[in-house]
Amino acid sequence: MTEKISRFLAERVPETPCLVVDLDVIAENYETLRHYLPVATIYYAVKANPAPEVVRMLADMGSSFDVASPGEIQLCLDMGIPGERVSFGNTIKKQRDIAWAFERGVDLFAFDSEQELRKIAQSAPGARVFCRILMECEGAEWPLSRKFGCEVEMARDLMLMARDLGLDPYGLSFHVGSQQTNLAQWDIAVGRTAMLFTELNEAGIELKMINLGGGFPARYRSEVASIDTYADAVMHAMTKHFGNRLPLMIIEPGRSMVGDAGILQSEVVLISRKGYDDDKRWVYLDVGKFGGLAETMDEAIKYRIRTSHDGAAVGPVVLAGPTCDSADILYEKAGYEMPLDLAVGDKVEILSTGAYTTTYSAVNFNGLPPLKAYYI
Amino acid sequence: MTEKISRFLAERVPETPCLVVDLDVIAENYETLRHYLPVATIYYAVKANPAPEVVRMLADMGSSFDVASPGEIQLCLDMGIPGERVSFGNTIKKQRDIAWAFERGVDLFAFDSEQELRKIAQSAPGARVFCRILMECEGAEWPLSRKFGCEVEMARDLMLMARDLGLDPYGLSFHVGSQQTNLAQWDIAVGRTAMLFTELNEAGIELKMINLGGGFPARYRSEVASIDTYADAVMHAMTKHFGNRLPLMIIEPGRSMVGDAGILQSEVVLISRKGYDDDKRWVYLDVGKFGGLAETMDEAIKYRIRTSHDGAAVGPVVLAGPTCDSADILYEKAGYEMPLDLAVGDKVEILSTGAYTTTYSAVNFNGLPPLKAYYI
Repeated sequence: MTEKISRFLAERVPETPCLVVDLDVIAENYETLRHYLPVATIYYAVKANPAPEVVRMLADMGSSFDVASPGEIQLCLDMGIPGERVSFGNTIKKQRDIAWAFERGVDLFAFDSEQELRKIAQSAPGARVFCRILMECEGAEWPLSRKFGCEVEMARDLMLMARDLGLDPYGLSFHVGSQQTNLAQWDIAVGRTAMLFTELNEAGIELKMINLGGGFPARYRSEVASIDTYADAVMHAMTKHFGNRLPLMIIEPGRSMVGDAGILQSEVVLISRKGYDDDKRWVYLDVGKFGGLAETMDEAIKYRIRTSHDGAAVGPVVLAGPTCDSADILYEKAGYEMPLDLAVGDKVEILSTGAYTTTYSAVNFNGLPPLKAYYI
Repeated sequence: MTEKISRFLAERVPETPCLVVDLDVIAENYETLRHYLPVATIYYAVKANPAPEVVRMLADMGSSFDVASPGEIQLCLDMGIPGERVSFGNTIKKQRDIAWAFERGVDLFAFDSEQELRKIAQSAPGARVFCRILMECEGAEWPLSRKFGCEVEMARDLMLMARDLGLDPYGLSFHVGSQQTNLAQWDIAVGRTAMLFTELNEAGIELKMINLGGGFPARYRSEVASIDTYADAVMHAMTKHFGNRLPLMIIEPGRSMVGDAGILQSEVVLISRKGYDDDKRWVYLDVGKFGGLAETMDEAIKYRIRTSHDGAAVGPVVLAGPTCDSADILYEKAGYEMPLDLAVGDKVEILSTGAYTTTYSAVNFNGLPPLKAYYI
């Protein structure tokens, strides 16, 4: 909770639920990342928080942008960001969207399959492409699936095919998983990618770029290592596996850039027990899984929560959202405790909610409006 | 797929993804329910699909409405529905929202805790209230939690307190779980509620109403019993436990009213394999978990899917959405199979998507617009 956010909440008393994002924190995160990874080019992952205020500020600071859709490209263009600073990082694109992006100057495309490569060759002839390698990394708090990437052997063949299709076989990418807390995963992933660089070099293709994806954490309930520790792990892996011939490095921070900059203020709507023997209180907030806190799905992301009673005696709670949906429960198994004197009408602050909240918000579920946000 | 929807899709060729809802099917469902449960008053659960077209039509047909929030109440008022035909069925309400609703003529409120009861007594003096009993029913496809309701013993005390607080202790409610496929659950739930009617009667309170909630199913991948079978189960339980002194009966159908009336048309964006030995194809659609299909969470609701290649040879697939989110997978474990000659650009139709889709849709996740819908 920064002083700026505290002051805003105290003076403006906005209606809850609402998200307040301190742009200074984002600026500082950007500079910190630049400082510790000066050789890397930052492509901010717009999907983490596509607020125009955030995108414009990062553009002014020199960031490039990783986008998922034409909607996000249009947003960048609207902010005056040229297509060359945009990477179309989604491996699942409609043919017409590739053409649309290419016409607007976007020249860097991700893929992980033959079909996608052929679509790009047809609609963005000569473009730079990078193949996403499938990594099954452990240690990420947000579940990583096999949805993105292909196995190394297939990636090799596809990069050769990219050349044959007239594309620029520009590089390789991977992702260690969002909110990755196991630093050793970077070494494994970079090592595997470096081997493929060598193999392709022997086949006559000199790759120019490695895209290290995102994965740097925000600060939720568990302690996480600081950004310099992550940067060290990345650079250690890079120099170990690439020596002094480092390729261009791209990183795509999203969560680590904006997560800690946001505070979601909510109000306690109800506190109850289900029966006389119930050993847990049920605390119902005015925000839930469908109002912006989708990442509590399966209790994956465990936010820190502040109340004005902090420091007083606490007891176990189940935390739930305000909708009539029985699945709208935030935390039931994660062992949350809250002050015993918490009362209906009290405000609570959910910390590190700057990433992956506003846009996950449902459009009108249960007649509730989407999460309001203020960028200050 | 009704003829009207087929014709609409063929003639209009709307951009995908989109939902098309046949209002005639909803009208027919309403009449069928009226026919088989003539003694029950229907309170349509607005949250299932709050489209003005749906709400207005059901209002004209005589339905009452179960709402979750002031937003849904405002929608009803905008459609010319008087407050007396609205039940504020959410057990989690802000004090000021209760007052707001009461001022607009809403006079029927749900609760399941002492705090909520006191809020209602203060902001809606003299209103009719009903207490939701906690039922832990098995057999519901959408997960039922302990989020709503309180144990019978507590419900009894709260109804006595309701009287002492000057409220009208009107009735009791329960919910057997959405998409409940085990008919025996109705007997258990009605039986438990009837016992509490008797107990309260002995304590000097004559309850007037039983609210049987929703739970009637839509038709997903598994066969479900027909509506008359459900109606039989309900009426059998009611007459068994209440004899010929039936209280007023309220039912709150949502899913069973609108689910089967909607078809979600989507386009295949990509088909790939992750490696040369991959025994499953990955089929990526232009709609996913955050674009309206939230109920595929944990693969709970298993929609039927049609393609233009149906009847041809099929093979196993993983079905995923179009976003850069690794959690945006629809079905990985549920054993879905799709035609081997399915191709990129093909349209697919996801059936029975009229309920709990449009409003779950994320407001702007990955730069994608919310699900478009047509009511015809």
